[in-house]
Amino acid sequence: MSRIEAVARAIPPLDAAAAERAQQHLNSLTKPLGSLGQLEEVAVQLAAMTGEVAPPVSPATVIVVAGDHGVTAEGVSAYPSEVTPQMVLNFLHGGAAINALSRCAGAGVRVVDAGMAVDLEHPDLTVRKVRRGTGNMCRELAMTREEAEQAICHGIDLANEEVDRGARVIALGEMGIGNTTPSAAILAAFSGRTVEQLIGRGTGLDDQGLRRKADAIRRALELHHPDPEDPIGVLSAVGGLEIAVMAGIVLGAAARRIPVLMDGLITGAAVLTAVRIAPAARNYIIASHRSAEPGHAVMLEMLGLKPLLQLGLRLGEGTGAALAMPLLQAIHRVMTEMATFGSAGVSGPVEA
Amino acid sequence: MSRIEAVARAIPPLDAAAAERAQQHLNSLTKPLGSLGQLEEVAVQLAAMTGEVAPPVSPATVIVVAGDHGVTAEGVSAYPSEVTPQMVLNFLHGGAAINALSRCAGAGVRVVDAGMAVDLEHPDLTVRKVRRGTGNMCRELAMTREEAEQAICHGIDLANEEVDRGARVIALGEMGIGNTTPSAAILAAFSGRTVEQLIGRGTGLDDQGLRRKADAIRRALELHHPDPEDPIGVLSAVGGLEIAVMAGIVLGAAARRIPVLMDGLITGAAVLTAVRIAPAARNYIIASHRSAEPGHAVMLEMLGLKPLLQLGLRLGEGTGAALAMPLLQAIHRVMTEMATFGSAGVSGPVEA
Repeated sequence: MSRIEAVARAIPPLDAAAAERAQQHLNSLTKPLGSLGQLEEVAVQLAAMTGEVAPPVSPATVIVVAGDHGVTAEGVSAYPSEVTPQMVLNFLHGGAAINALSRCAGAGVRVVDAGMAVDLEHPDLTVRKVRRGTGNMCRELAMTREEAEQAICHGIDLANEEVDRGARVIALGEMGIGNTTPSAAILAAFSGRTVEQLIGRGTGLDDQGLRRKADAIRRALELHHPDPEDPIGVLSAVGGLEIAVMAGIVLGAAARRIPVLMDGLITGAAVLTAVRIAPAARNYIIASHRSAEPGHAVMLEMLGLKPLLQLGLRLGEGTGAALAMPLLQAIHRVMTEMATFGSAGVSGPVEA
Repeated sequence: MSRIEAVARAIPPLDAAAAERAQQHLNSLTKPLGSLGQLEEVAVQLAAMTGEVAPPVSPATVIVVAGDHGVTAEGVSAYPSEVTPQMVLNFLHGGAAINALSRCAGAGVRVVDAGMAVDLEHPDLTVRKVRRGTGNMCRELAMTREEAEQAICHGIDLANEEVDRGARVIALGEMGIGNTTPSAAILAAFSGRTVEQLIGRGTGLDDQGLRRKADAIRRALELHHPDPEDPIGVLSAVGGLEIAVMAGIVLGAAARRIPVLMDGLITGAAVLTAVRIAPAARNYIIASHRSAEPGHAVMLEMLGLKPLLQLGLRLGEGTGAALAMPLLQAIHRVMTEMATFGSAGVSGPVEA
């Protein structure tokens, strides 16, 4: 049994008894039954994931995984590839959106090089480089199967490291110019939908760029015919190194019963892949938001996830996940700080 | 000129130049143009309200205004009226949802008695009592015109007090068993829609209770025929004391250029009323969420407001506003902490 398979099998089922205790506790609090809506659903899910009625949601870490993409040669991004390392330096210097929003949420940011085309040296950069950028999926495999497996294992290791350091929530983040293209290709492979239903403008493609992107994805799918029953094969054919690492993070965190906050389209591609490898991983995902990218809604539907936020975000980096963290903190406050009808001497409903 | 009229006239127009500077600053930051979606729209609105490119959003205060409702005699609520003072004590002891969520957001909570049926004494309770509960609007005026004006003036004073103490954002919150009924009646008066389109189950009415509620609102509207061109008359006929005070808070905050976070249906009724008194007040409102109450969506549409959250909340107290505060804090972080393309040495779009 491979390591990936072993971790996949180690993901525990949800704890129905903890979920029931959480629901009973919610029902005892001084508020109308169910009146916190979706937050109550997430409270119960968090209990089911962790086995605790009111699990702490901090410390939380946003793992921002970076990689480059050979497919950018096809003109699929509004930005040049050199922006990947430039933005990684920006993350390391604390000046990017994910830094500002993570500070706001009290979360840490860990920056990982999973496969940038250039090599950066920085004391705060975690280097788990599998190769220097993917191959151009329109002409060759994005990566070999062994490279995909190696990247997934790096992700499992990263999740374990963060959990060992105390993380109670892990958020997925990413940077990689061109990476909405492999994400949409992965989604097309798993969903069987046509490319046109799935692609968007990413960071700001014009109409011509959008046609190039659709064309590149179609050519790659025709070249490789990735088998949706073979998720590691899909990653190898049309994936990204940061996507493979994030899929590993999902598996590793789920095996440790740690909730994973999904962000936008690229993190969604990683979650989809992880859930194809291990369906039980789905139970440990919280959808932070619905992005402006059309494919993201399809992913949420396929995963059966209801997003916490709908703000028209299309930034990536894990920004939606960081923005949703205060809602998880709010849930924890509700579960731990609110009075019950009994303790506060508040009367229940007239009918009760 | 009455005091209310004077405050209404003192509400300044939006600062278009500050909005433009905020937009330019957003466009210079290291992220794809517009990629923070609705948060960028709110960032620009906050600048337009305050005249500052990146206005601080703390300290923030949730003013929770309580009042009782004579119309509860008609069986329009799932909870007995005694819950109003019980919950006010819960607020004062820090055990309610609004306390937990405000602590989470770093916001203060100020509890105001605008017209509870009973008198409570507590060092932290602000007493601005206009009368002990409203009249039953099915049989009489909820309050006299003078009482409505007095309550509005209390609200103006409260806003001024909070701004003088340093508040940069004021959130509306409320408690009053039965208060979705006057709120829906106010909405019916201003919107001209039928009661059935506007009412919901509040804190948990059954089908029979829902029919009683619709019937009570219809009877009150038939009795008083409130004139939508006379917003203080509408308050007097079918309003609530906490609603009138909150309408005054809106006017007072807007006149001081302080953003007001609207919560659910009851705070929406206050905002609608304030905007009928002073249309310019609309510019100072941020819709924190869309509640599960059907009438709330109608209010948002009438006000032209796009809510930040859609979590199916129906708790009230200001809880949705408290939950949205971290998004305002996130906006402030983005505006003040993010690097620009120039400062971070990040390349712009290829086409640029």
